[in-house]
Amino acid sequence: MTDTKSTSKTGVLIIGAGPAGLMLALWLARLGVDARLVDKRTDKVYSGQADGFQVRSLEILDSFGIADKIWNESNHMIEVCFWNPDETGTIRRDNRVVNGRAGLSRFHEVVLHQGRAETFFLDAIRDSYGPATSMDEDDVGAKTENATKTEKKSIRTHPRRRIAVERKVTPTSLAIDKQQVNDADDYPVTVTLRHLSESEATPTQVLSNVQDGLFRSNLDPPDEGVETQRKDPPVFVQEEVVQCKYVVGCDGAHSWTRKALGPEFDMVGEMTDYIWGVLDIVPITDFPDIRNRTMIHSAANGSLMVIPRENRLVRLYIQLTEVSVGSGRVDRSQIKPGMIMKAAKKIMSPYNIDYHYCDWWTAYQIGQRVGNHFSKLNRVFLAGDAVHTHSPKAGQGMNVSMQDTYNLGWKLGLVCKGILQPEVLSTYELERRAIAKQLIAFDHRFSRLFSGRPAKDILDETGVSMDEFASAFRQSHMFTTAVGIKYQPSILVAAAADSPPEQPADDKTETDDDVPQSTAHSTSALSTACIVGMRFPSHQVLRHADARPWHLHHKMPSDGRFRLVVFGGELTVSSPQLEKVNKLGAWLANTLLPKLPTMALMQGTTNLHGGGRPGYGLAPEKPPSIVDVLLVYASPSDSSGSAVEAPDLLDFHEVYHPFDSKLGHDYDKVFVDRPSHHDGDGRAYENYGIDRMRGVLVGVRPDGYIGLMTSLDADAGWNEVARWFQGILQPRTGDK
Amino acid sequence: MTDTKSTSKTGVLIIGAGPAGLMLALWLARLGVDARLVDKRTDKVYSGQADGFQVRSLEILDSFGIADKIWNESNHMIEVCFWNPDETGTIRRDNRVVNGRAGLSRFHEVVLHQGRAETFFLDAIRDSYGPATSMDEDDVGAKTENATKTEKKSIRTHPRRRIAVERKVTPTSLAIDKQQVNDADDYPVTVTLRHLSESEATPTQVLSNVQDGLFRSNLDPPDEGVETQRKDPPVFVQEEVVQCKYVVGCDGAHSWTRKALGPEFDMVGEMTDYIWGVLDIVPITDFPDIRNRTMIHSAANGSLMVIPRENRLVRLYIQLTEVSVGSGRVDRSQIKPGMIMKAAKKIMSPYNIDYHYCDWWTAYQIGQRVGNHFSKLNRVFLAGDAVHTHSPKAGQGMNVSMQDTYNLGWKLGLVCKGILQPEVLSTYELERRAIAKQLIAFDHRFSRLFSGRPAKDILDETGVSMDEFASAFRQSHMFTTAVGIKYQPSILVAAAADSPPEQPADDKTETDDDVPQSTAHSTSALSTACIVGMRFPSHQVLRHADARPWHLHHKMPSDGRFRLVVFGGELTVSSPQLEKVNKLGAWLANTLLPKLPTMALMQGTTNLHGGGRPGYGLAPEKPPSIVDVLLVYASPSDSSGSAVEAPDLLDFHEVYHPFDSKLGHDYDKVFVDRPSHHDGDGRAYENYGIDRMRGVLVGVRPDGYIGLMTSLDADAGWNEVARWFQGILQPRTGDK
Repeated sequence: MTDTKSTSKTGVLIIGAGPAGLMLALWLARLGVDARLVDKRTDKVYSGQADGFQVRSLEILDSFGIADKIWNESNHMIEVCFWNPDETGTIRRDNRVVNGRAGLSRFHEVVLHQGRAETFFLDAIRDSYGPATSMDEDDVGAKTENATKTEKKSIRTHPRRRIAVERKVTPTSLAIDKQQVNDADDYPVTVTLRHLSESEATPTQVLSNVQDGLFRSNLDPPDEGVETQRKDPPVFVQEEVVQCKYVVGCDGAHSWTRKALGPEFDMVGEMTDYIWGVLDIVPITDFPDIRNRTMIHSAANGSLMVIPRENRLVRLYIQLTEVSVGSGRVDRSQIKPGMIMKAAKKIMSPYNIDYHYCDWWTAYQIGQRVGNHFSKLNRVFLAGDAVHTHSPKAGQGMNVSMQDTYNLGWKLGLVCKGILQPEVLSTYELERRAIAKQLIAFDHRFSRLFSGRPAKDILDETGVSMDEFASAFRQSHMFTTAVGIKYQPSILVAAAADSPPEQPADDKTETDDDVPQSTAHSTSALSTACIVGMRFPSHQVLRHADARPWHLHHKMPSDGRFRLVVFGGELTVSSPQLEKVNKLGAWLANTLLPKLPTMALMQGTTNLHGGGRPGYGLAPEKPPSIVDVLLVYASPSDSSGSAVEAPDLLDFHEVYHPFDSKLGHDYDKVFVDRPSHHDGDGRAYENYGIDRMRGVLVGVRPDGYIGLMTSLDADAGWNEVARWFQGILQPRTGDK
Repeated sequence: MTDTKSTSKTGVLIIGAGPAGLMLALWLARLGVDARLVDKRTDKVYSGQADGFQVRSLEILDSFGIADKIWNESNHMIEVCFWNPDETGTIRRDNRVVNGRAGLSRFHEVVLHQGRAETFFLDAIRDSYGPATSMDEDDVGAKTENATKTEKKSIRTHPRRRIAVERKVTPTSLAIDKQQVNDADDYPVTVTLRHLSESEATPTQVLSNVQDGLFRSNLDPPDEGVETQRKDPPVFVQEEVVQCKYVVGCDGAHSWTRKALGPEFDMVGEMTDYIWGVLDIVPITDFPDIRNRTMIHSAANGSLMVIPRENRLVRLYIQLTEVSVGSGRVDRSQIKPGMIMKAAKKIMSPYNIDYHYCDWWTAYQIGQRVGNHFSKLNRVFLAGDAVHTHSPKAGQGMNVSMQDTYNLGWKLGLVCKGILQPEVLSTYELERRAIAKQLIAFDHRFSRLFSGRPAKDILDETGVSMDEFASAFRQSHMFTTAVGIKYQPSILVAAAADSPPEQPADDKTETDDDVPQSTAHSTSALSTACIVGMRFPSHQVLRHADARPWHLHHKMPSDGRFRLVVFGGELTVSSPQLEKVNKLGAWLANTLLPKLPTMALMQGTTNLHGGGRPGYGLAPEKPPSIVDVLLVYASPSDSSGSAVEAPDLLDFHEVYHPFDSKLGHDYDKVFVDRPSHHDGDGRAYENYGIDRMRGVLVGVRPDGYIGLMTSLDADAGWNEVARWFQGILQPRTGDK
């Protein structure tokens, strides 16, 4: 079977190129870390699968510069309608309300099929390296266009320069050398990869998406690998042994990686008796709310959810009350698009619904399961569906999966670059397993309320109260948007000294007690809207140099840098507060930053917004500090900002406008809270809940979560900053 | 010299692929009209040239789906600063105000170099035809990558299917057969094209942009064609004779086309003594307003304008007071970047300015000239710099040029398709020559105020008053943004019966009296903000079907369709006003629209915003009417929009939600004026100045200009609509 065998090394091997794997690959590309991304499938997803993009996911995608594309192409779900049986058992609209909550973010929930997002990820990974040259072309890993060519090409043994998806590649063995796991420079994980032939990698099930919608459904027998779906015997097989510093399994609900880690890696949870069908169609209907997110509980025919999609597509989630679960295993042969549609018609009656075009369909059995471990020895990690599975109707799966690897990516990347201390890696399981458990608990409650029969009246105890359902839906926004998630105190998140710990007991994971803690302490009272452990919120401010309005998030791209956001308070040329801000600047420039690492930024990480023609041949003189300093001051409320007392840029310490002998001053680090000319008033100090006379210093992690909040005061606040970084970063040894 | 000679036919031959030519090509691509675009240069502009994008240009580019890219990459010029000499003669900031006027549009002025815009045009032209197939590839006209290949390729004689720039092609003769000009199906214009070799097409001047910045400057000897710049004798030359329905010269200030039309086509105007230099640099400076648009009048060293650009670039316009105009011709050898910079330093003193990197430079002599004719026999047209030249500092040139062909493109395209009556073509000169004359008058006044020495005091009569300068600048916004421009009554613009004509006498062109007028009449009192002859303004409304906020402009893409915007007033299920709106709907569907042509839309014209994965294989059953009907109603002010009285989509006549047996209802034609959940309240009826109890019917041309405004009333308003279209459109003869 094996015709050739080769060996190679890589920093990070990512198994699975779905949204979780792609998010991780994008992080590592942006950080310039040597990594590989393999997937056994022949191509990306073209239809069906996940489609919901939640608020926090859009913020994250925007930090990589790719949210605009999704925002523009997607359908925006603004309102949600609740339809319930009336006294006669006929469905009728009970309510129409905003979907989510206004004011949480500059984004709201949108829907677009997963394949488009995967395309944008692939483009962004490629663009991370700047324009391609012909020299690079040969270096971009396995291509899919021409299988024969790929198969005959010998596997390179040099570290690859660019990350690109290597398709038709599947792992066959994984081993960890425990002697090597403590040295960050070692490659303790050995994985054997098998490069598949075209026919071997193409399961018959995916030849047409409408032929068998149950491919990849959880009603399908577990997918033990593509061998079971092979059409022909392979004609040519290559095996490759890869030595890895780290391996991350993003390989879905039937994760090969999870199984390879042994029987102690288990999924804990249970299945329900509820079976649901899914249809992506262009509907022909007189139902009035077909373009709104709509939840229909029928009197006796089950429930249905309408998810209006991009273009004229609509996704219907349809409860299949007539499919029997029987002895725990569903009879798959019963389930076809026609019977799913029949169920939908019954639920939506007296309205008519039909279709000419069906884009995709599937069915699934509701269940909730979570992995008991998310990593092994902090060298092999699991993410996404590999560690949490649940029902898809709340549009959470792809989002939580992407957010898993968004949490992991910068940690792995900066450890590989020798910038971050390896202990930080233990925060991945701490932070993300708690979220997975919250997800499972949410889904457990929500699916039972939605799949349950509506109560006929208040005495109907086995029925579900429609008021309780609507209320559960409303209360879920902070979690489902992921804006409300909060990471526990750790080496990365300096606990507040002025408020008691508030973490609910059931979020604790088994490893909580082992987690190293920061020696720094936060002061939570300095801002009412910035919460340590939560994502830094974004509000509009104006750039000092040109009065252009920016969301602060736009100045905090995912480039691997920590950020100190100096809320300087009200500043005028003559104010003592300006002196304080400049004293802090001098301490940062002369004392703190020289001790911390620097990091050259990749091309794709600059000019995400307001960029332009790619570089005119001028690189900065020296790599910037790993810590990016932003100043946000308030314009005195009695001033229009153009008053004589308004400071000019050079009135601020140079740390706030770093000077480069070829590029001049950096005009993109100082911002002011005042009304814009065209885009309203961001009222940032008010929205952040920050005292305009006092200010605050906020330490933000590379993933946008707040790790520290302290005062601008010499010694007091400064020491907390120094201690926080000391626990996280390696000391500077040279430019990186 | 001539090795091969071939003949071909084309609907429209466009000469010159700058912004004017590209805008025209984009229109024709979107309309699916057979056209060719030739340019003698080897490639598009990479640096320098024009950079200002005005409000109306951005609206127009957005109607083609390409404003987002410019908006994101460009620098936004939010504020403008005025620096003048103080009592001691030292410059100081007199004022800082908003650049332009807030509330004119959803856009404001931005700057980005012309080459990026040209790239976006080329992409948009290509995307008009949908995804490329391998079959198309051979059909895309002359390629530039491989000159030898192109030269040897025989010229196709079939109409080309896709428009693409054919570079290194220059016209050598033009003749009009006057016998043929009256038949719209004839090809009366014969042009000989010469296909140049690579060396012939590459003037030495453009080998490096920094080598000689005066290439293409108006200080240069007139550019009589590339022959004078040839390096080597041509090795292989092809000539092609093209029979054209129409020819448009977009070939710049030294327009070959204009000269080919004979001596009666002249540029009228004069030059001044003012010489200015231009530098595009990355500045190293302590001048505080280097990132704002800044106008500096120094006491004795001349004036300077700062235009902050994308990335870290800044453009400086610098008056060169030490260059003598002499006997009317400038000594070019004096002018180098170093001497221009020296002049800048003197003006900006006591601030320092320097640079390490210069992207581009040039110099020019201020003058204003306008063409006396814009077309010959409505078969050959001139546009852009070919008919108006002036100083560049107000950022008008590229904008007025693009707007010339934006005005012409749909007229030519729809005449070629047999939809529009050929008489409409005479409105091009009527409408655009008036604008060119306004431009010249504006530039004349503004350049003298800016180039003049500041008055020392009120008695200094030869000096320029800085108050007058600032006031002239403020008053110019409606013109410089192009939001205020107004086209005269004609066959396309039905004059208001209820208000006197207000056209200033000096805007009249020689041909005004010949212009055919519409037999319809507008009622101007029905809206205070919609003005007949001006562009239809855009305000935010919510889509009825899903509550998503849209600017109305986003639902009026440049796809060649006329639009009837039915402002229906306040509508509830039981209101008599709904009955009136539905009666109008029935008349439109049953009486008017069946008489008017239909037009299949090109792929690139749909889903500009909120699009998604390109088509899932479903085309509409039948081509839509040339007239697109949009309904904008007001939500009763005492209702949240979710009240029981709110109409559902099917309560409206089907003309407002056209039904397709495969695609279902169209949910994208009915909009409601009510507050959004996330994006504020568009207050459309208030902003349009429309009576909520009465409404109005607005007829909008394919270029977004208002041609008719009348009431919803049976007979009264309906007859005006019928008359307006009768004067413009051909009767329906079959699907197009």
